[in-house]
Amino acid sequence: MKRERKGEVWDFEHELPGGSGGGGQKLILGLDGGTTKTICVCMPIIPSTPNHSPPVYARAVAGCSNHNSVGGYVFLVLIISDIFPNDVEYYVENDAVAALASGTMGKLHGCVLIAGTGTIAYGYTKDGREARASGAEAILGDWGSGYGIAAKAVTSVIRAYDGRGPETMLTCSTLHELQLSSPDELIGWTYADPSWARVATLVPVVVSCAEAGDQVANDILLHAVQELASSVKAVVHRLGLCGKDGKDSFPLVMVGNVLEANKRWDIGKEVIGCISKDFPGTRLVRAKVEPAVGAALLAWNYLIEQYQQELSGVDYN
Amino acid sequence: MKRERKGEVWDFEHELPGGSGGGGQKLILGLDGGTTKTICVCMPIIPSTPNHSPPVYARAVAGCSNHNSVGGYVFLVLIISDIFPNDVEYYVENDAVAALASGTMGKLHGCVLIAGTGTIAYGYTKDGREARASGAEAILGDWGSGYGIAAKAVTSVIRAYDGRGPETMLTCSTLHELQLSSPDELIGWTYADPSWARVATLVPVVVSCAEAGDQVANDILLHAVQELASSVKAVVHRLGLCGKDGKDSFPLVMVGNVLEANKRWDIGKEVIGCISKDFPGTRLVRAKVEPAVGAALLAWNYLIEQYQQELSGVDYN
Repeated sequence: MKRERKGEVWDFEHELPGGSGGGGQKLILGLDGGTTKTICVCMPIIPSTPNHSPPVYARAVAGCSNHNSVGGYVFLVLIISDIFPNDVEYYVENDAVAALASGTMGKLHGCVLIAGTGTIAYGYTKDGREARASGAEAILGDWGSGYGIAAKAVTSVIRAYDGRGPETMLTCSTLHELQLSSPDELIGWTYADPSWARVATLVPVVVSCAEAGDQVANDILLHAVQELASSVKAVVHRLGLCGKDGKDSFPLVMVGNVLEANKRWDIGKEVIGCISKDFPGTRLVRAKVEPAVGAALLAWNYLIEQYQQELSGVDYN
Repeated sequence: MKRERKGEVWDFEHELPGGSGGGGQKLILGLDGGTTKTICVCMPIIPSTPNHSPPVYARAVAGCSNHNSVGGYVFLVLIISDIFPNDVEYYVENDAVAALASGTMGKLHGCVLIAGTGTIAYGYTKDGREARASGAEAILGDWGSGYGIAAKAVTSVIRAYDGRGPETMLTCSTLHELQLSSPDELIGWTYADPSWARVATLVPVVVSCAEAGDQVANDILLHAVQELASSVKAVVHRLGLCGKDGKDSFPLVMVGNVLEANKRWDIGKEVIGCISKDFPGTRLVRAKVEPAVGAALLAWNYLIEQYQQELSGVDYN
């Protein structure tokens, strides 16, 4: 089912019977706005059984809603204000928060590590404190990100070529992958398009070379593991998620294709191993739903808690 | 004295009497085209006494002639073809070559290390072989460059702030220098303008902190020294400038504000020390003239050699 809004077609993949307008029922929209696509889901505000979330009434997919990593939030608020009447409440959060909620089913507690083109670690305590590490993107040294890994690989090819670094299998594999004939052409390729996502597509090449025994590729991945683990450890340490003795249990949600490689050289597994050495209570949680549903569950969880407080009817004043 | 060409004013700073048109005399123009300004000098093709170069007849300064580091050469050739008749010979070279010539007074032998916003090492043998190391700019790991040093400093501030790295004096000094109130604002500052030269202006802050005993700043400079030295060593090794026993003498021209700090923490001096450990024949040469004169001397040297060969009149056929 497709609908049009301001010349753009929004594709509603599925819609439950009677879901249109919710029949007077109060609804939650969960939105995950990215640079390539934007996903929106709709769910009702109804109490649910333990370990189950409310049903998703509808799901829509549209294009980019985050034109600029810095100004993205402002842009989103403008769009939302434009669509909805004044009595609708909305909350805009860092997408790491929605990713955390997609693993904890809406509860803001624990730590999330995202590693795709970029990387960020975000954590929340039960009493509402929060902390972040990394997430300052490529120029400011997010070396565990997909971009960071791939940029180090391309740099290693150049270093081997001009005599500053050891020979590496990455040279042959990278040139083959990009259909280039010499490392000199790699410089042109790198600067032809400043997109970090484009460089980050080389991560599987690095993993393959490391699996084939290449020392340079292996060192790049080991360094990335240290970097990713250090982001999580910094957040856990600052928030005291591990308790006073460092052994308390806390959920760690891991999201992003760098962590989901699931190959022989498993970056995600190594990161968990590295964190668990310092914090044995680390409990790995894989995301159960997509981030847009995580965002909706965040609001759902918040509203259900409010509803339960009202039901208990205790007035301490 | 100012002259106009296609709406742009070229400022001739000085011109010797009778220098206009050279009075039928054959002339050389040496051009140094950069992103902020372009310098052109004019000298005659006359033999000169040893250790002296011909006089500079005129010197002109204009704006940018290198709009794009990749396409710059093509652009220059188009300009030159437009101005001069077909019987004028011209040579376009990497600006590292002009920098080498500015230290060796036109002789293409030895190695040059440039470290300003970017960095490159270039070398030539007497029999015409050449080699390069670094010079692939920021994304491809020129960590000894001014940009590389400053980017590491800014990254260290962010790492200290989010708990991934040790506390450093760079935090206070960098925020003070940029008139920012928190490291969070530093992220915005970094991405507000993608100019590498803008980030590189923070190098003196790193040097000051290292001189004041800050370990993080000190480590950044030590790493830069290793990187710069490794570029030179790669070129020297590949060209065999050091001879078979590694002890032959060769000139090393060092250019750029990173190497000319001339403070207590002297990056250039440390680089020389590091290279000399491997190659004791390294002979430091400071540039005696500006790169535009170096470019002219390059052509002058080439033409004088041709002239001397003609004079010797030997025909081996």
